[in-house]
Amino acid sequence: MIPRYSRPEMVAIWSPETKFRIWFEIEAHACDALAKAGVIPERAAQIIWEKAGSATFDVARIDEIERETRHDVIAFLTHLAEIVGPEARFVHQGMTSSDVLDTCLAVQLSRAADILLADLDALLAALKRRAFEHKDTITIGRSHGIHAEPTTFGLKLAQAHAEFERCKCRLEAARADIATCAISGAVGTFANIDPAIEAHVADAMGLTAEPISTQVIPRDRHAMFFATLGVIASSVERLAVEVRHLQRTEVLEAEEYFAPGQKGSSAMPHKRNPVLTENLTGLARMVRGYVTPALENVALWHERDISHSSVERMIGPDATITLDFALHRLTGVIDKLVVYPEAMEANLHRFRGLIHSQRVLLALTQAGVSREDAYRLVQRNAMKVWEQGKDFLDELLADDDVRAHLSEDEIRARFDLGYHTKHVDTIFTRVFGES
Amino acid sequence: MIPRYSRPEMVAIWSPETKFRIWFEIEAHACDALAKAGVIPERAAQIIWEKAGSATFDVARIDEIERETRHDVIAFLTHLAEIVGPEARFVHQGMTSSDVLDTCLAVQLSRAADILLADLDALLAALKRRAFEHKDTITIGRSHGIHAEPTTFGLKLAQAHAEFERCKCRLEAARADIATCAISGAVGTFANIDPAIEAHVADAMGLTAEPISTQVIPRDRHAMFFATLGVIASSVERLAVEVRHLQRTEVLEAEEYFAPGQKGSSAMPHKRNPVLTENLTGLARMVRGYVTPALENVALWHERDISHSSVERMIGPDATITLDFALHRLTGVIDKLVVYPEAMEANLHRFRGLIHSQRVLLALTQAGVSREDAYRLVQRNAMKVWEQGKDFLDELLADDDVRAHLSEDEIRARFDLGYHTKHVDTIFTRVFGES
Amino acid sequence: MIPRYSRPEMVAIWSPETKFRIWFEIEAHACDALAKAGVIPERAAQIIWEKAGSATFDVARIDEIERETRHDVIAFLTHLAEIVGPEARFVHQGMTSSDVLDTCLAVQLSRAADILLADLDALLAALKRRAFEHKDTITIGRSHGIHAEPTTFGLKLAQAHAEFERCKCRLEAARADIATCAISGAVGTFANIDPAIEAHVADAMGLTAEPISTQVIPRDRHAMFFATLGVIASSVERLAVEVRHLQRTEVLEAEEYFAPGQKGSSAMPHKRNPVLTENLTGLARMVRGYVTPALENVALWHERDISHSSVERMIGPDATITLDFALHRLTGVIDKLVVYPEAMEANLHRFRGLIHSQRVLLALTQAGVSREDAYRLVQRNAMKVWEQGKDFLDELLADDDVRAHLSEDEIRARFDLGYHTKHVDTIFTRVFGES
Amino acid sequence: MIPRYSRPEMVAIWSPETKFRIWFEIEAHACDALAKAGVIPERAAQIIWEKAGSATFDVARIDEIERETRHDVIAFLTHLAEIVGPEARFVHQGMTSSDVLDTCLAVQLSRAADILLADLDALLAALKRRAFEHKDTITIGRSHGIHAEPTTFGLKLAQAHAEFERCKCRLEAARADIATCAISGAVGTFANIDPAIEAHVADAMGLTAEPISTQVIPRDRHAMFFATLGVIASSVERLAVEVRHLQRTEVLEAEEYFAPGQKGSSAMPHKRNPVLTENLTGLARMVRGYVTPALENVALWHERDISHSSVERMIGPDATITLDFALHRLTGVIDKLVVYPEAMEANLHRFRGLIHSQRVLLALTQAGVSREDAYRLVQRNAMKVWEQGKDFLDELLADDDVRAHLSEDEIRARFDLGYHTKHVDTIFTRVFGES
Repeated sequence: MIPRYSRPEMVAIWSPETKFRIWFEIEAHACDALAKAGVIPERAAQIIWEKAGSATFDVARIDEIERETRHDVIAFLTHLAEIVGPEARFVHQGMTSSDVLDTCLAVQLSRAADILLADLDALLAALKRRAFEHKDTITIGRSHGIHAEPTTFGLKLAQAHAEFERCKCRLEAARADIATCAISGAVGTFANIDPAIEAHVADAMGLTAEPISTQVIPRDRHAMFFATLGVIASSVERLAVEVRHLQRTEVLEAEEYFAPGQKGSSAMPHKRNPVLTENLTGLARMVRGYVTPALENVALWHERDISHSSVERMIGPDATITLDFALHRLTGVIDKLVVYPEAMEANLHRFRGLIHSQRVLLALTQAGVSREDAYRLVQRNAMKVWEQGKDFLDELLADDDVRAHLSEDEIRARFDLGYHTKHVDTIFTRVFGES
Repeated sequence: MIPRYSRPEMVAIWSPETKFRIWFEIEAHACDALAKAGVIPERAAQIIWEKAGSATFDVARIDEIERETRHDVIAFLTHLAEIVGPEARFVHQGMTSSDVLDTCLAVQLSRAADILLADLDALLAALKRRAFEHKDTITIGRSHGIHAEPTTFGLKLAQAHAEFERCKCRLEAARADIATCAISGAVGTFANIDPAIEAHVADAMGLTAEPISTQVIPRDRHAMFFATLGVIASSVERLAVEVRHLQRTEVLEAEEYFAPGQKGSSAMPHKRNPVLTENLTGLARMVRGYVTPALENVALWHERDISHSSVERMIGPDATITLDFALHRLTGVIDKLVVYPEAMEANLHRFRGLIHSQRVLLALTQAGVSREDAYRLVQRNAMKVWEQGKDFLDELLADDDVRAHLSEDEIRARFDLGYHTKHVDTIFTRVFGES
Repeated sequence: MIPRYSRPEMVAIWSPETKFRIWFEIEAHACDALAKAGVIPERAAQIIWEKAGSATFDVARIDEIERETRHDVIAFLTHLAEIVGPEARFVHQGMTSSDVLDTCLAVQLSRAADILLADLDALLAALKRRAFEHKDTITIGRSHGIHAEPTTFGLKLAQAHAEFERCKCRLEAARADIATCAISGAVGTFANIDPAIEAHVADAMGLTAEPISTQVIPRDRHAMFFATLGVIASSVERLAVEVRHLQRTEVLEAEEYFAPGQKGSSAMPHKRNPVLTENLTGLARMVRGYVTPALENVALWHERDISHSSVERMIGPDATITLDFALHRLTGVIDKLVVYPEAMEANLHRFRGLIHSQRVLLALTQAGVSREDAYRLVQRNAMKVWEQGKDFLDELLADDDVRAHLSEDEIRARFDLGYHTKHVDTIFTRVFGES
Repeated sequence: MIPRYSRPEMVAIWSPETKFRIWFEIEAHACDALAKAGVIPERAAQIIWEKAGSATFDVARIDEIERETRHDVIAFLTHLAEIVGPEARFVHQGMTSSDVLDTCLAVQLSRAADILLADLDALLAALKRRAFEHKDTITIGRSHGIHAEPTTFGLKLAQAHAEFERCKCRLEAARADIATCAISGAVGTFANIDPAIEAHVADAMGLTAEPISTQVIPRDRHAMFFATLGVIASSVERLAVEVRHLQRTEVLEAEEYFAPGQKGSSAMPHKRNPVLTENLTGLARMVRGYVTPALENVALWHERDISHSSVERMIGPDATITLDFALHRLTGVIDKLVVYPEAMEANLHRFRGLIHSQRVLLALTQAGVSREDAYRLVQRNAMKVWEQGKDFLDELLADDDVRAHLSEDEIRARFDLGYHTKHVDTIFTRVFGES
């Protein structure tokens, strides 16, 4: 995580202050339940909230204690005792560090997921607005980077909308997967703490109780979470690469918004580079890079080892902060994207009608020509356009073998652009529920 | 994919014969719908089924044609024309290769997912059976590879059961994600083919219609699918590593079944090695290794490029075949696992009562000792057990500071194993719905 | 590995026949050394060569034996005994399976590396030939996909040449890293076999002796090897992506060779798609995907576990065969690449002189204008070209503030293309040692 | 990068202060060369050093300027102009941002590599010291986690020494790979800057001149660098896993040093967990996770895009800081590792002589028994030891079929431990050049 690619709200989730606040809440809620169960005095649970409920925990002091104990939860509990006084001895009864750490991580990842879901909503809104704006903006569809047939720029954005809606569903599932609470003791048997405590804390923290934990919440949950972030990042990259292509000099059908005062190059003042989407391409690589460590974290030894911890201390913040930043940046790119419909149309006509080749092919086969013959007829005229700069319509009209099967009007009818957009409303209705 | 790690049913999904059969079905169903829509003659659609409906496609012949055309779908259509005759010209009307290829891949991946789901069911059944068998088999729980507190072997297996149930849910979601059909033409606009054709084919092939395709079905779907396989593979590794640990010489609480005639080592006849679970560890690495290529496939250029194709030709079979083999092998390992309850009990007592340390700690705090003092009291006795081979109970009974707070009976009560298993039924009910 | 992306010579390295042949050679050379050391009878060593030296090992028979013994080396030795007779008991004396397996893998990987090195040589030759052919073919250099300043097409290829020369050096180092022989027994102590045997076999098989093995050759060697293949694959992707960009419709400065009879699209006969380089992009993803499993193979347990084995059975062939195919394909692409110098020139002039902006900027600063002022002067004229389609030279000549510092001749001199190519020879000499 | 896993010296390399200092040096050295070439006034070059040579650059101010210009190098040059005054206009003449950025990165990575090389030296020294200390400490060698044959603890450490020596060689090669300087202008043609400037700066900064750059130094160099770090991290994991295994309760042959005051568990005071090596396992996952993003960075578009930049801003610090911390931590673990030779010996004898099975097998074959018969004879006695707790020597002496071929003395001789260590000196000499 580096400030350049971070937004404060997500960063705050991962601050030591937030972490200690969540730890406190877990411990204090557990005390409430322990008091209710008669394990500790009710008054003790009250005092803990009274003394520390609105306290600011001293991060530096906790760090200092940890340097001696080399154990972060013990350091926190020691500091909590400094604030709470003798009743602190009732805190953490029958619990183990992982009960606190893993439940805290579940809270942090859930909150992070909530921000990411809001990011996706904002992106979806921008995509929808621009998609409807350009629903009928004709542009060339390309396969292999080669002109294929016409489509509309709105359809491109609608496709992205459908993709990010899927991403949102996946993230909701992933969020549910990691939002569990475990307060089950040293090896998950509840030997020293009743399952009722876990149920209470889960409820209080907005989580569900983990059905079976060992000492830890099983890491397949987190693996699925980070893998899902990797998929979303890949969808970010896809849309970013589309913009990068559209902005390249020879295409120039759309551009990232270029702020007044912005400088594209220290040397070449004319340069307006798609730096935001290039940056998104790189950030996607990073978020994807965190998937494998998360997958490797699953196979902990026996009831747990702590090898996952350093990984999560890093990728917890890094993956969520980076993806939050990327989604926000992408939303801005889409929101302010400068679109050039005239350039789209000019590019579309660059090859003098060649994009209508398939329609002519179909017309020929429907007129009774075998597929193979039709293919050859179309291809030989197409090649003249491609190689000699001829006009496709002119060539077809002048080709006796073609004309033997199709009249001039039948040929000309195949060059109508409206033919390609007749189902745009159908597709928009599929994607947006309206058109 | 190599035969050693393959099972025939899954391999068959990826054979050229299966592929061409699916291609044919897609084309023939599309013809039915085209005929119904009046685009092609009804009789043509019938003839296609009659002539090729039960034909075996000649893979070698198709390959031969492809060597000339360098295009697999065209090669197939050419061969189909050889079988069907003149009506073949009505096949593939308005469609593009990807309509066939991507819908076929959806069918293949769906079928592969069905096998994997059945594999998971078999694994879950084995885990459940062995979990109930060993519900009360006491064993030591370990964190960091170090003895922690008692648990039962059934709980270990119940944990795995819960994990693979999650895997099953994830796979069901991933299957739904890739089970879509696209028959939308060159850039997904349905310019040359009505959406009704897609709807018909989707229904006939057991898929849902892709809401918006470009030329291809968007690859975030496949990325999610393969990422999910990577998560499942990691869970396979987790359970495999558990068995490997249990079988190591010094632990030896369980062993893979060792068949009569099997040889563990060319040099050391006494060796019985956990080779199956070691193998599973390696296979998990492979299935995980396919995740990143699948993620990199998402960002295709514009409406599509074909860079994803070679990746999918390889990881489609490799990932599903390997995971199928791994799940089946793991099921066999669990099913036949030789469990040594006596060894589990012997290991449990290896450190002469030390595993009860936390209970003594809690007893002391409940008797009014501060947490820090209690910790020190327990640790000083624990260290004597650890370093000098003393018995923990004896030491505690002889420690005046301990005895100042706890009676002999109070101390002895903390050494009861039943204390640790009192919630096993609760947890089993959570996991299995019964106990 | 699939036939479509395989070449026979590399496939042959990984056949069972080749493997058993290498196993035999290792065992037979070891017998020679054992006989020389007096451990086994000299005559026994001779008989082994006589009986099996030119035998073809029966793969099906060995597989059959392995199904009973579940151990591949024992199965092979049993089959060898069927061929050799009673003297077979002297084979494998004091050795362990890994001595054979790991040394065999070293031979296979070395041979694979030799093919890959030859592939690189062929690629380098093609790059050199085409680089010199186009040493002076002016083309626009692009950063961010945006026109920057002129370069030559030969320089692009020279860059690739330098990159693949580095790849070759890295592969030579990686080959040296895995070309070691270990004949050191069950845990690498040479307890049952003298180091002299290892020295003899190493020499006979063209390897160096592993300084210290456990039971196995340490897997950091293999990790480095496969990581190196991943780097080379990434360089393949880089050049492939360059070609894909050059071939896209709007750029079209170069094209993959399009064979007569080849069909670009089942629907659109005009399509000529960069399918080879798109394919290379996908293959690069695969070779990169094998890196992480190889890295995960390093941390074997204690003196070894066998989790690496399944990984290597798969990535050994898959990575080398795929990269071999990719390098060969890339060589073909470069060799036959159709280059369009006229298109390069046309694209260069697309923005009416804007590519000379930096030169004008420098001229202004050299004429005493501050950098900031010069930047603003150049940018305001550049923007008129960009946005209003003006000619950059005309605008500059008409800008009084510019003319206050630069004469017409001074301005015109900045539009000379030769200025940009004056160091091409220098760079060629750096790369090729000649120009 | 997080403070918990960072060391100050490595962190300092990546501070903005260091970066701006290096940028300044590159620019100032370039001015020297430009002055010498007569491109700018000699006095200007002097003034730049005089005014800014010992200046502290104001990071906050540069950030402020960047917020307007959105270009970091321009922001720096603007700030430099504030310090230097009018002569600043001679700075950066004919250069492009990447000349500065990439050369700076080369300096940073070289310095980082130097620290890592020193880390490796320290680790190698610790390994050597402990290896010699335990050269003759007998311990059981294990394959598959199962007892195999005796080795010495010194050999285990010698193996690690050899592995990290290879790592050092690889890192030296990787360092050379990234230590290049490019001052070649907008597309690498030296159009606006003479190659002599690059040569001067390269020399002054301790780098070699990049033979051919585009706008950037090609990223295959960096890919190789980070891939190498991933291999080293995997070797770190291997040794860490060895320690984790040795420390597990049932093995307990060695332990991480446990500081007075350290607490192993918040709940279980007896716990002494291998937390450092578990942590190293996790850190290795992270460093490996950075490899793929670095590989994906290679295929930049045309002469460059900037997608690599965000990746490098993150993995540059993250990978080097994490690996530095890990190597340092591992050195500490090895240096202070508590070794228990008595436990090693006790474990060795756990299976009552079974580890000598291979020697008996060999003795039988040398006495004329066929390999298959010998194997069966040994295995049937081994199984009695394994399953019934018998003593291997007793059983063999009582087996008439064995005794038919071997006398009591011949059998007893096979149980000599010295037999296994006779080549330790040979191996030490191979590894350390001495024994």
